[in-house]
Amino acid sequence: MSNSNPVELITKKRDGRALEPAELGALIEGFMAGRMADYQMSAWLMAAWLRGMTDRETVALTEAMLRSGRVLQHASVKAVKIDKHSTGGVGDKISLCLAPLVAACGVAVPMISGRGLGHTGGTLDKLEAIPGYDVRLSTKRFERVVREVGCSIIGQTAQLAPADARIYALRDVTGTVESMPLIVASILSKKLAAGLDGLVLDVKSGAGAFMKDRASARALARALVSVGRGAGARVSALITDMSSPLGRTVGNALETAEAIAVLQGAGPSDTRELTLALGEQMLLLGGVTRTKASARQQLVRALDDGSALERFARMVAAHGGDARVAEQPSRLPRTRQRVPVSASRSGYVTSIDAFEIGQVSVVLGAGRLRADQPVDPRVGIELEKKPGERVERGEPLAWLYLKSRRDAASALTRIAGAYRVGQRRPRLPPLVMECIPR
Amino acid sequence: MSNSNPVELITKKRDGRALEPAELGALIEGFMAGRMADYQMSAWLMAAWLRGMTDRETVALTEAMLRSGRVLQHASVKAVKIDKHSTGGVGDKISLCLAPLVAACGVAVPMISGRGLGHTGGTLDKLEAIPGYDVRLSTKRFERVVREVGCSIIGQTAQLAPADARIYALRDVTGTVESMPLIVASILSKKLAAGLDGLVLDVKSGAGAFMKDRASARALARALVSVGRGAGARVSALITDMSSPLGRTVGNALETAEAIAVLQGAGPSDTRELTLALGEQMLLLGGVTRTKASARQQLVRALDDGSALERFARMVAAHGGDARVAEQPSRLPRTRQRVPVSASRSGYVTSIDAFEIGQVSVVLGAGRLRADQPVDPRVGIELEKKPGERVERGEPLAWLYLKSRRDAASALTRIAGAYRVGQRRPRLPPLVMECIPR
Repeated sequence: MSNSNPVELITKKRDGRALEPAELGALIEGFMAGRMADYQMSAWLMAAWLRGMTDRETVALTEAMLRSGRVLQHASVKAVKIDKHSTGGVGDKISLCLAPLVAACGVAVPMISGRGLGHTGGTLDKLEAIPGYDVRLSTKRFERVVREVGCSIIGQTAQLAPADARIYALRDVTGTVESMPLIVASILSKKLAAGLDGLVLDVKSGAGAFMKDRASARALARALVSVGRGAGARVSALITDMSSPLGRTVGNALETAEAIAVLQGAGPSDTRELTLALGEQMLLLGGVTRTKASARQQLVRALDDGSALERFARMVAAHGGDARVAEQPSRLPRTRQRVPVSASRSGYVTSIDAFEIGQVSVVLGAGRLRADQPVDPRVGIELEKKPGERVERGEPLAWLYLKSRRDAASALTRIAGAYRVGQRRPRLPPLVMECIPR
Repeated sequence: MSNSNPVELITKKRDGRALEPAELGALIEGFMAGRMADYQMSAWLMAAWLRGMTDRETVALTEAMLRSGRVLQHASVKAVKIDKHSTGGVGDKISLCLAPLVAACGVAVPMISGRGLGHTGGTLDKLEAIPGYDVRLSTKRFERVVREVGCSIIGQTAQLAPADARIYALRDVTGTVESMPLIVASILSKKLAAGLDGLVLDVKSGAGAFMKDRASARALARALVSVGRGAGARVSALITDMSSPLGRTVGNALETAEAIAVLQGAGPSDTRELTLALGEQMLLLGGVTRTKASARQQLVRALDDGSALERFARMVAAHGGDARVAEQPSRLPRTRQRVPVSASRSGYVTSIDAFEIGQVSVVLGAGRLRADQPVDPRVGIELEKKPGERVERGEPLAWLYLKSRRDAASALTRIAGAYRVGQRRPRLPPLVMECIPR
């Protein structure tokens, strides 16, 4: 029998019984209609946190949250629509180069992104480093940009999966964030409401990631793939290393410049490599090619022939931004203060604590601790040396881009402390650790 | 380290760790001061429901809830102050005769009681069957009545343990009622805020009780005794049978009349016996006597010599009620309609389903399903036959006291169905099953 009474829905989960899809539908509908109070939802969330949820329940919860608002159709977009979602890391500017690159290969990317919070950065903040770029398009305009350019990156709107926003706000203040099924339903409901055919997940693993170890990253990736498929989407996931920051920059304008460098066929090897690896998955899910090798060929060609960069410029222009940054990244805002962090000993960089780097970037003003804080697009950290590289005593390990010299002292110490320098060349974890499925 | 941040208090309990007394103090203070929201408290309550609490935590929670409002001192009352609390049953009118009886033996009883809800009755509703009896005295007046009469029974006031009322209201709608430590803290904080030296608990066990079996009744009794002592009170508990209703009446005026009959030295044997058994515990806790035998002697004398009845009359008068009911219970309100429930076969009554009798009494108007519903003092059920008694086919098993004949049909069927009649004389459970400690 299917319940819709809030107390019955709570006690059923409390007692460890699986809710029926109709009950999860009633839970979300009742919550959005005000028949289930915040204090009832938070009790339910705690019961779900402690008792867990089956994949069947998580699929039903995802679908109910997805249906809580508008679901975009992009009826006028003929191309297959594939998006990418990252679980969040430090220095992760991949979306900025990936979306136009994949669009250049014939796959549409209607991407709805977030802002940085805590030690992790956010794509919207990076895009807003481009003078004029507006992340708030109407859904109509969003569809038009996706149709005409092939990709568009906007911010979350209140119309899509509003249940997720309300539930997340509750989870944030009731100790119910770190629940695998709740995380999965939150990510997927928001993403799939954008009307996607498929979704590639970049599940980060390591110190700078939400999932600190590979086993939990794998569990999250598997749950996302399984539940996403249960909800009718094409889904695959890569588990990627986030023990050290990605690429050589952390900070909004710095990262945007790095993403442009990748689109120009240059850029740090790891940023380029992860862009290509995720692009392969997107082309495969989109069905525009059959093998990873041919997908990579297409992607590399789009970088080499400038078509990916051109898509980027068109996307920026369509969002009201200064498209000249595509050719002239020096147009991005930059601080005057640039201070080196010097190595106190010679050796090999064995690791850079991504979490600490992320925390320092917040202190510098590149990120925020509360959702309502502004960020400074100019500030950040450039990693002159990355793990595996040789450094001599006194050489710069990194550069700080500061608003003011006053921010330097403690940041210098902390960045230096985030670097480990040893005598032997380290064995580094692979960037792409695993692909799911397979 | 001691936390006061709501989210940290939630996650600590969620993760199964025991909170420090200072943390439980911060929980309740923060909740009452508005620094912890309802939706945070309900998440904490669900975590406590699922993870449990140690006795040390429950003591600290009890004390924090107790301190959330005024704590009565009764400084002018010289006698030792002992109260009784029952976990709720059907036909339980013991407080009405017990408080004056114990007062007559030199132990003061400042009793704060509740109303009926669901199948269980409430002492306040029974007292209000007495014309003029006012259950809402000021705390000053309450103290004066306790000092001058030796006992007073009033309703819960918003000043005592207000945290309990707010938390209970949340538990009621978030599936977190049935938690042993939360029940214990709720009972004890409310009771001990009345400034008691000691408390005797009547933990009911059986179909009509909250605890349906003896093992869970024993667990609750032990927790109440252990936590109550931890909070500095003298506490003992009896586990008593609630498979069948207590005494021969269910319904407010009917039960008040029965309590008066006990005070007059008569009344049903089980009602009298339980009054004496609980009275023994109260005199022992109060230290006015050393042995159960001498306690019983004093109690029986107070019934026989009319001093208990006289205390009752004085208490009623002090509350503005018509004290003549003590000598003339016929002054209590009564319906005109009295309808027999006849036995459809001859034999021995083997059991009477207390839960069903309680439910029917609500239908008749003697009880309520929601706290804001009024009750009719006149209606109820008189149990002509009790378990172990012989009945012949066609004889009345019980009498219904009805507002109107229209209520008769379904009630008759249900009351008849609540009786089990068999061919052999049944073995009945003992009324007092266990005493804790010992």
